[in-house]
Amino acid sequence: MIEKVVIIGAGNVATHLSKAIKNAGIQILQIVSRTEDSARELGTLLNVPFTCIPTEINTEADLYIVSVKDDDIAPALSTYNLPKDALIVHTAGSVSMEILKDFSSNIGILYPLQTFSKKKDVNFKEIPVYIEANSINNTNKLLQFAGRFSDRAKEVSSENRAHVHLAAVFACNFTNNLYSIASDILEKAGLSFEDMLPLISETTEKIKILHPRKAQTGPAIRRDSKVIEKQLNALEGREKQIYKLITESIQDEKL
Amino acid sequence: MIEKVVIIGAGNVATHLSKAIKNAGIQILQIVSRTEDSARELGTLLNVPFTCIPTEINTEADLYIVSVKDDDIAPALSTYNLPKDALIVHTAGSVSMEILKDFSSNIGILYPLQTFSKKKDVNFKEIPVYIEANSINNTNKLLQFAGRFSDRAKEVSSENRAHVHLAAVFACNFTNNLYSIASDILEKAGLSFEDMLPLISETTEKIKILHPRKAQTGPAIRRDSKVIEKQLNALEGREKQIYKLITESIQDEKL
Repeated sequence: MIEKVVIIGAGNVATHLSKAIKNAGIQILQIVSRTEDSARELGTLLNVPFTCIPTEINTEADLYIVSVKDDDIAPALSTYNLPKDALIVHTAGSVSMEILKDFSSNIGILYPLQTFSKKKDVNFKEIPVYIEANSINNTNKLLQFAGRFSDRAKEVSSENRAHVHLAAVFACNFTNNLYSIASDILEKAGLSFEDMLPLISETTEKIKILHPRKAQTGPAIRRDSKVIEKQLNALEGREKQIYKLITESIQDEKL
Repeated sequence: MIEKVVIIGAGNVATHLSKAIKNAGIQILQIVSRTEDSARELGTLLNVPFTCIPTEINTEADLYIVSVKDDDIAPALSTYNLPKDALIVHTAGSVSMEILKDFSSNIGILYPLQTFSKKKDVNFKEIPVYIEANSINNTNKLLQFAGRFSDRAKEVSSENRAHVHLAAVFACNFTNNLYSIASDILEKAGLSFEDMLPLISETTEKIKILHPRKAQTGPAIRRDSKVIEKQLNALEGREKQIYKLITESIQDEKL
């Protein structure tokens, strides 16, 4: 049973995850971060001990959660002198579990599928949390742990986690860029992006009840070539290329 | 004052718009549609008269709303013998008002910015409704009319309406295609699209409080070239091209 946790990192994921862990009644022994400011900020927010000095890391935890930038995972862990059998997980979407094997004999993944911003609270209960570990025992421990703050914890292989991360890039990061392009088009015409919000909400509400391929609307799926031509003529450069490619992508969809 | 309306068309826009008009206490004299089935379906739903016979159109209305496919607007109107001073509007995003001038001396646009599906109700009050007309008097009549079922009716020129429609294609139709691509990636890996929904909701919740350019997250904006390379290698064909283009688009964003 995991009852005492050390969080390594103090960024967006570390912040929201450690709030969820604390709210679930699990003890956070310590926040460890590279800089004193970030360690203090999160430690103070959660009212738990914090440090930025590697040798001060608490070695009594049941679980170490490393939530730092992908490239910093191994360098960070090499600065701490953790027990060789400490249970260590990272929270990255596209980093293999293998990266942890130099640091312990008990390793795993705890990947929450969400986009986190410091200033915006989230309901962790509904966030899928993907678990992987190097033994059945560790997998079960982590599933039981994550189940205390998420209703959607499940075991997912590294390979499938990479697929999920890729899908998330399309569904979240790339759609956000399309919102940016829409706002550019509106702002150039002196119009407000705010008018788009009901349309955007409805688009995402629809896919809760209809498969996205069945929810597709607009000139591309109607094959309204007059409108498509007019809209292509209004665009240039990369935005025109994106318009062409996604129009083709919609027209090739198989139901 | 517009008190009596005839709706020409019985598709998604006609259905939701006529429901909103009726709920606002405005009289719908008649639903006119090309086929008897569609006329009956909407007429019955609203409990108002309906017809599919062009000569039976009611010529006493204060307003005729033509809500049919872009290419059918002129052909449809040419089959009706409407008074030459009847107020006629269409509801299309990318069709000029000029298309109506052969049919009446009082013409305009009533364009609701929303994606409509027959089976899903919408809150019309929050939908922006863009008005345009060929005289100040007609503009005011239409603004006053639309204000009875939308809190966001405003005058917008044909030119700006085209910009809004183009922005909507990016923000709604194209994002939906990215959801389809995400679901393909997940389904190929035997995973469920449902896991994406909290992430998708959060992405759209965020842009209600942050400009999309400030809400951007993910490997592209972090310039995480290892992840980008890995993800590009997992893709092929059009999806790979879309990944490349939108990644570049994110990296070029100016804050």
